[in-house]
Amino acid sequence: MGSSFGQLFRISTWGESHGGGVGVVVDGCPPRVPLAAEDLQVDLDRRRPGQSRLTTPRQEEDRAEILSGVFEGQTLGTPIAVLVRNRDARPEAYEDFKDVYRPSHADYTYQAKYGIRAWMGGGRASARETIGRVAAGAIARKVLEMHGYGPITAWVSRVRDTEARVDPLTVTRADVDAGPTRCPDAEAAAAMEAQIDEARRAGDSLGGTVSCVALGVAPGLGDPVFDKLEADLAKGMLSLPACKGFEIGSGFAGTRLKGSEHNDAFYAEEGQVRTRDNRSGGVQGGISNGEPVVIRVAFKPTATIRIEQETVNQNLEPARLAASGRHDPCVLPRAVPMVEAMVALVLCDHLLRQKAISKP
Amino acid sequence: MGSSFGQLFRISTWGESHGGGVGVVVDGCPPRVPLAAEDLQVDLDRRRPGQSRLTTPRQEEDRAEILSGVFEGQTLGTPIAVLVRNRDARPEAYEDFKDVYRPSHADYTYQAKYGIRAWMGGGRASARETIGRVAAGAIARKVLEMHGYGPITAWVSRVRDTEARVDPLTVTRADVDAGPTRCPDAEAAAAMEAQIDEARRAGDSLGGTVSCVALGVAPGLGDPVFDKLEADLAKGMLSLPACKGFEIGSGFAGTRLKGSEHNDAFYAEEGQVRTRDNRSGGVQGGISNGEPVVIRVAFKPTATIRIEQETVNQNLEPARLAASGRHDPCVLPRAVPMVEAMVALVLCDHLLRQKAISKP
Amino acid sequence: MGSSFGQLFRISTWGESHGGGVGVVVDGCPPRVPLAAEDLQVDLDRRRPGQSRLTTPRQEEDRAEILSGVFEGQTLGTPIAVLVRNRDARPEAYEDFKDVYRPSHADYTYQAKYGIRAWMGGGRASARETIGRVAAGAIARKVLEMHGYGPITAWVSRVRDTEARVDPLTVTRADVDAGPTRCPDAEAAAAMEAQIDEARRAGDSLGGTVSCVALGVAPGLGDPVFDKLEADLAKGMLSLPACKGFEIGSGFAGTRLKGSEHNDAFYAEEGQVRTRDNRSGGVQGGISNGEPVVIRVAFKPTATIRIEQETVNQNLEPARLAASGRHDPCVLPRAVPMVEAMVALVLCDHLLRQKAISKP
Amino acid sequence: MGSSFGQLFRISTWGESHGGGVGVVVDGCPPRVPLAAEDLQVDLDRRRPGQSRLTTPRQEEDRAEILSGVFEGQTLGTPIAVLVRNRDARPEAYEDFKDVYRPSHADYTYQAKYGIRAWMGGGRASARETIGRVAAGAIARKVLEMHGYGPITAWVSRVRDTEARVDPLTVTRADVDAGPTRCPDAEAAAAMEAQIDEARRAGDSLGGTVSCVALGVAPGLGDPVFDKLEADLAKGMLSLPACKGFEIGSGFAGTRLKGSEHNDAFYAEEGQVRTRDNRSGGVQGGISNGEPVVIRVAFKPTATIRIEQETVNQNLEPARLAASGRHDPCVLPRAVPMVEAMVALVLCDHLLRQKAISKP
Repeated sequence: MGSSFGQLFRISTWGESHGGGVGVVVDGCPPRVPLAAEDLQVDLDRRRPGQSRLTTPRQEEDRAEILSGVFEGQTLGTPIAVLVRNRDARPEAYEDFKDVYRPSHADYTYQAKYGIRAWMGGGRASARETIGRVAAGAIARKVLEMHGYGPITAWVSRVRDTEARVDPLTVTRADVDAGPTRCPDAEAAAAMEAQIDEARRAGDSLGGTVSCVALGVAPGLGDPVFDKLEADLAKGMLSLPACKGFEIGSGFAGTRLKGSEHNDAFYAEEGQVRTRDNRSGGVQGGISNGEPVVIRVAFKPTATIRIEQETVNQNLEPARLAASGRHDPCVLPRAVPMVEAMVALVLCDHLLRQKAISKP
Repeated sequence: MGSSFGQLFRISTWGESHGGGVGVVVDGCPPRVPLAAEDLQVDLDRRRPGQSRLTTPRQEEDRAEILSGVFEGQTLGTPIAVLVRNRDARPEAYEDFKDVYRPSHADYTYQAKYGIRAWMGGGRASARETIGRVAAGAIARKVLEMHGYGPITAWVSRVRDTEARVDPLTVTRADVDAGPTRCPDAEAAAAMEAQIDEARRAGDSLGGTVSCVALGVAPGLGDPVFDKLEADLAKGMLSLPACKGFEIGSGFAGTRLKGSEHNDAFYAEEGQVRTRDNRSGGVQGGISNGEPVVIRVAFKPTATIRIEQETVNQNLEPARLAASGRHDPCVLPRAVPMVEAMVALVLCDHLLRQKAISKP
Repeated sequence: MGSSFGQLFRISTWGESHGGGVGVVVDGCPPRVPLAAEDLQVDLDRRRPGQSRLTTPRQEEDRAEILSGVFEGQTLGTPIAVLVRNRDARPEAYEDFKDVYRPSHADYTYQAKYGIRAWMGGGRASARETIGRVAAGAIARKVLEMHGYGPITAWVSRVRDTEARVDPLTVTRADVDAGPTRCPDAEAAAAMEAQIDEARRAGDSLGGTVSCVALGVAPGLGDPVFDKLEADLAKGMLSLPACKGFEIGSGFAGTRLKGSEHNDAFYAEEGQVRTRDNRSGGVQGGISNGEPVVIRVAFKPTATIRIEQETVNQNLEPARLAASGRHDPCVLPRAVPMVEAMVALVLCDHLLRQKAISKP
Repeated sequence: MGSSFGQLFRISTWGESHGGGVGVVVDGCPPRVPLAAEDLQVDLDRRRPGQSRLTTPRQEEDRAEILSGVFEGQTLGTPIAVLVRNRDARPEAYEDFKDVYRPSHADYTYQAKYGIRAWMGGGRASARETIGRVAAGAIARKVLEMHGYGPITAWVSRVRDTEARVDPLTVTRADVDAGPTRCPDAEAAAAMEAQIDEARRAGDSLGGTVSCVALGVAPGLGDPVFDKLEADLAKGMLSLPACKGFEIGSGFAGTRLKGSEHNDAFYAEEGQVRTRDNRSGGVQGGISNGEPVVIRVAFKPTATIRIEQETVNQNLEPARLAASGRHDPCVLPRAVPMVEAMVALVLCDHLLRQKAISKP
C-alpha cells in the first residue's frame, strides 16, 4: 500500500535505489495526448544526479523507456508504464549502513515496519523513487496543456537563511534553470551556491524552501471536503523525501494578520472574478478560484552527512557513523522538478474529476 | 467525490450547515470496540458553537445519535452511522450572502465549481461539516486506546503574535480545557483572550496556530511513499476549514539548521531505539519511529467579518459587504478538537494498515 | 470496509435490520440534477416488504428522508444522505436465532468474522440493507436520464422451473408491475404465483432468476481491464443477498455454440455500428457497444424457512431450527428493483468515468 | 482507470500485445515472503501460448523479471514490479484488423471509447494482458501458503457440450496438467481434445466452462456488503477475456431447488462448524465459512476465427473478414491458470483485510 497517488490520473511508482530499476505506471491518462519519451526526459534530466557539484556525484543517465500506453505518438488511454534502469549502483558504498542506522534517515523505521530492508542506497527511501513521479508529472503537464492550463514553475526560494526575491507572476523555467541552485534571484543564488559548496566541503548539509506557482488554473478544481486542492497538494509535498512543511498562499505568515487585513477583496475583470491580493494562494474553500496557485515547501537538511554522528546498530548497541557514499549536500535544486511534478499530478487529477461532473 | 478520508478506517461525512443535519459513516472500524453515544459527545461538546464569548453564539446542542454499527455497547464491525440534526438554523441571517460573495470564503468557488450553492450558512463549507470528523475521531481514539496508544492532545499555540510556551511531553487535555482559548500557557492564554475579545468587538477576526502531540505511537506506522504518515497528516489538516499550513517536527524552522545540527542522534533505552532530540517529529521516512508525533497547523483569520469589504455579486457587479450573522472571531479554540480528530483518524487508519501486513 | 460501491458515483450504505434505521450516502453525484424524496420513494415502494402475500408481512413504510446534498429541488454536487427509520422491528421474533445458526444464512459467518453479531433480523445481512442501494439507484437513474440514457428494466424471468418468455427490447416497467410476481409474461406469472404461494404455505421457499435490460447506453462505457462493465455488473449483482450467479448476453448457454455461430456480425445503421444479434449483451472487451445491455442473475431459495432443519448452536452443539419470524417465500419479486438499482449505479459510475477522459 | 485490482493486495497491470512488453506492479504484499522469479515462472509457463496444438502458435518464452520489491530472496513490503518483454510480435499479421472491426472482439469498442486503438494484436484486449495477473497470482499464493491456506485448483469442466466429472475435494494440479486440455477427467479430456482440434482445423472456435476450488480457506474472509467474497470473485472472473458468466456453489442450478432442499445443514466436527453439503460454495452472506470455495466460470468461443464473417470497417462500410494471425481455437486450457490467479488474488486481499480488523 501507499505507492499510488491520485484518483483518476493515478500513478503507481515502484523500485529501490539499487534494484533492477525504478518506474511508474500511470493509469487514467486520457487518450490522444501527444507523448514521446523525450517529453519525460526533459524533466528527468532536471532531476537526475550529477548535474553539478551541488548535487550527488552518482552518475545516472536516467533514460526513460515508455513500455506501454503510447501508440504512434499518442496516448491510448491505457496504462503508461515507464522504466528507468539503475546503472551506477555501488552497493559496496553502503556497507556502512547495512548494520547501523543513519540518524534522521529511514533505516530504522523501515526495519521497524517491515522487519527487513534493502540497506543499499536506502532502498525505496531514496530520491531515486521520485523518478517515477517526475516522469508521470511530465505526462500530467501534457494533459494540462491540452486543456489550456499555463506553466507550473518551482524555484529554490530559500537556502538556510538566504531568502530569494522572486515574482511568482513572471518567473520562468529559464530563469530557474539559469544556475545550478535553481534560484532565479541571481544575487541570492550566488550566496546559496557558496553556502551549499561550503557545506559539501565540510561534509555537512543544508535545508531551505522551494516555492511553486501554477498559472492558468481554471476555477472549480478541488473537491470539498477532504480532497481540497490544498489538501492534496499538501499530501503530495509531504510525501517527498525530506519535506517537513507546507503552506499555501499567505501560509503561516498570514495567520499574523487580522481578517480585515488578510481577506482577498473581489473585483471583476473581463467577465472573470478576480482578487486584489492573492493571500488565498489561488484556492478558497478547497477549490481553485482562477488566481495563481502559490505554495511553499520546507525541505530539511539532507540526513546523510560525512560528519560523524552518534547512533545505534541493529543490535541496539551504541555506534558512530560518518557516512561515505554519494549524497546531495542540499536537496533543494533537485527538489524543484519534484515539486512541479506533484503540483502537475494534483491539478491533472482534479481536472479530470471536474470534467466527470460537468454538464452533459 | 472528496467526502471520504482513510483507506481502512474510512469515514464519509455529509451535511450542509442549514439542511436536515450533518453526520458521518465510519466503515472499517474493528468489531468489539466498546462504544456509546457519550463517547462521541465529549468531543462534540468541545467542538460545538456557543461555548464561550470567544466563539460563535449559534446555539446547537449537537447531540449525536448512533444509528448503526453498535450492538449492546460494542461495535459490530459494520458501518457506524452518526447523525446530528441542525437546530438553530437561521437562514434569514444569510440573505446577505445569497447574491454577494464573501471575500476569502468559499461562496464564489462553490458557485464556479457546481453552478449552484447552498448559500445559507456556507452550505458544506461550514465548520458544521467537522462534526462528522470529530465524532469519527472519537471512535478512532477508542480503537487506538484498545491497542495501547497514548493520548492525542492539541492546543492553541499561537494567536496572531502571541506565542504560548508548552511542553508537548507533559501537556494534558485538562490543561488545554482550563480556559476558553484552549491555550495551556495561562499567561499567553490571558493575552490571547483579550485579543480575541477585542477583535470580536471590532467585528474583525484573528488567526494563529494549533499544535498537537500524539504519545505512545508504535514504531512502524505510515506507508511509503505517498501515504507517509506526515503526508496523510498534512492532508488531514489542510482539509480543515481555514487551514493554510502544516509542519511536522522541526518544520520550517528546522530548514535553517545544518544537517549536523538537525539530525536526531539515536540511542537505545530499555530495548527501544530512541532519539536524543525529536526534530523528526516522530516520523522518519514517512514511518513512525516511536517518538511523540508533533505537528503544527496554521489557521488564517476567519473570513466572515462585520467590517465592510469590497467584493462582487453574482452578476459580477461591484458590491460592499459587512457580514451580519453569527461567526467565530477566531477559529482556533474550536479547531483544537478538529485537529485531534484528524490525527486520531490518520493514526487509526495506519494502525489497521500495519496490522494487515503483520506476521502470521 | 466493504460498504461502498462505485469510484466516481460512490455510495456507502449503512444500517442493521433492527437498529436505528438504514441509509446511504451518495458522493459524487453531479450538481443541478433535479431531485426530490418522491423520486426515491417510487423505487423504495417497489422494494419494501408487505406489498403482497408473496412477500414478507413485515410492515415498513420505508419513507426516505433526504438529509443533505439537495437544495431548492436540485443536487448540490455534495454528498446526498438518505435516511429510512426502522419501524416494525420485532426483535423478539428473532430470539430463536440468538443462539442458533440458520443454515445457509449469514449467522455463523458473521460470528466467525467479527466475534459478535446483531442477531435480530440478521443485522446487516438483511434485505433491509438494500434500501440504501435502491435509493441511490434512483438518483443514478436521474443522472442517466439527464444524459439521454434509456430505461433500465428488470423482471422475474424464472421461478424454480417456470421460465417466462419476455422480449427485452419491448418490455416495460408497467408490464413488470402488472402483477405481484413482477413477471411480465402473464401465463408464466400465474404459474409462478401459485408456486410461491404453495411454498409459503408449506413454510418453504423458492429461487429463480431475474433478467435486466438497459436501453440507450452509449458506446464507450467500461474500463478495461479489471473494471470492465460486465465485471462491475457481476460484482454488483453478486453483492445482492441470495445471489449465486451472473451472466451477460449469451452467458452460459452461449458457451455451447461455435465461434462462427456465436459471433455478433457488425453492420452500420444510421451512422451507428450495430450487431445483427446481441449475444455479447451490449458489451465487448469490457466496453459498451451501444446495443442493449442484457444480464441474468440467479437467486437461491430464501435461507430462512419454517420447515425444521438440522444445525448447531453457538456452543457447536447439535440443534434443530424451524424459523418463525417474517420472511419472503421467494426473494425474486423484491429483487427486481434491487437489480435495476445496481445496474443504474454501475452505468452512472462509468458514465462519469467516461466523461473524465473526454476530449477537451 | 480500471487496470488495478484489490484493496490491500493491489495489483496494477499494464501493457499491450505488441508494445514494449507487459507487466504488473503488486503493492501491499507483506514483507518477508520468500519469493524468486521461478515462483512466477511456473504459472506463467502454464499460461503462455504455444504449449500444444490446442493453443495459439505464437512463440513467447514469457520470462518474468522481478525489478523491485524483493531483496535477498524475500519480499520487502514495497511494490513488486514484474516485467515480461514481448518477443514474437508480428504486427504485419494484424494488418487485416487495422481498418476492419472483428465481430465480438474489442476492436470497435476501444475505438468508440478512446478514439484510438493499438490495432496490432488487440492491444490491451489481448490475452497477453493476463500475464501480469498470473504473475501476481503466484505471489498471492505464496502469501496464502504462509498463512496456512490450501491449494487453489482450476480445471476445464466443460468444452461445448462435453462435461467432465471431477471431484473438487480431491482433484490436483497434477491431474489437471496431465493433458493439454487441462481437464482431469481423462475420458472427457480426450473428447474435448478431438473437438478443439476439429475446430482448429475448421478455423472455428469453441467455448465452455472452467471450475475452480480453493481448499483450506479460513472462515471470516469477505467484507459485507459490496465486497462479499463471491462479489469480488465474480468481478475478477468477469474481468477475464471472453468470460460471460459466473456462479458460486450451486449457482444457477441451485435456483431450481426449494429452500428445504438447498439449505446447507450445519454440524460440528473437531471444534469446527461444517456443512453437510456445500451448496453455498464455501461462502454465506458474503463471508467464507471454512468449506471449500467452489466456483464455475463461462468462457465464450474465441472471437477471432478464420471463417469469413460479416462486419464493417472504420468508415462504417460493409466488409468481410476471415482472420489470419495466430489465435487459440479454445481459450479454456490457458484460462485455467488465469482463473486460479484471480481466486488467489481475491483470497489474499481479503486475508489481509481480515487481519487488519483482528483482535489486538
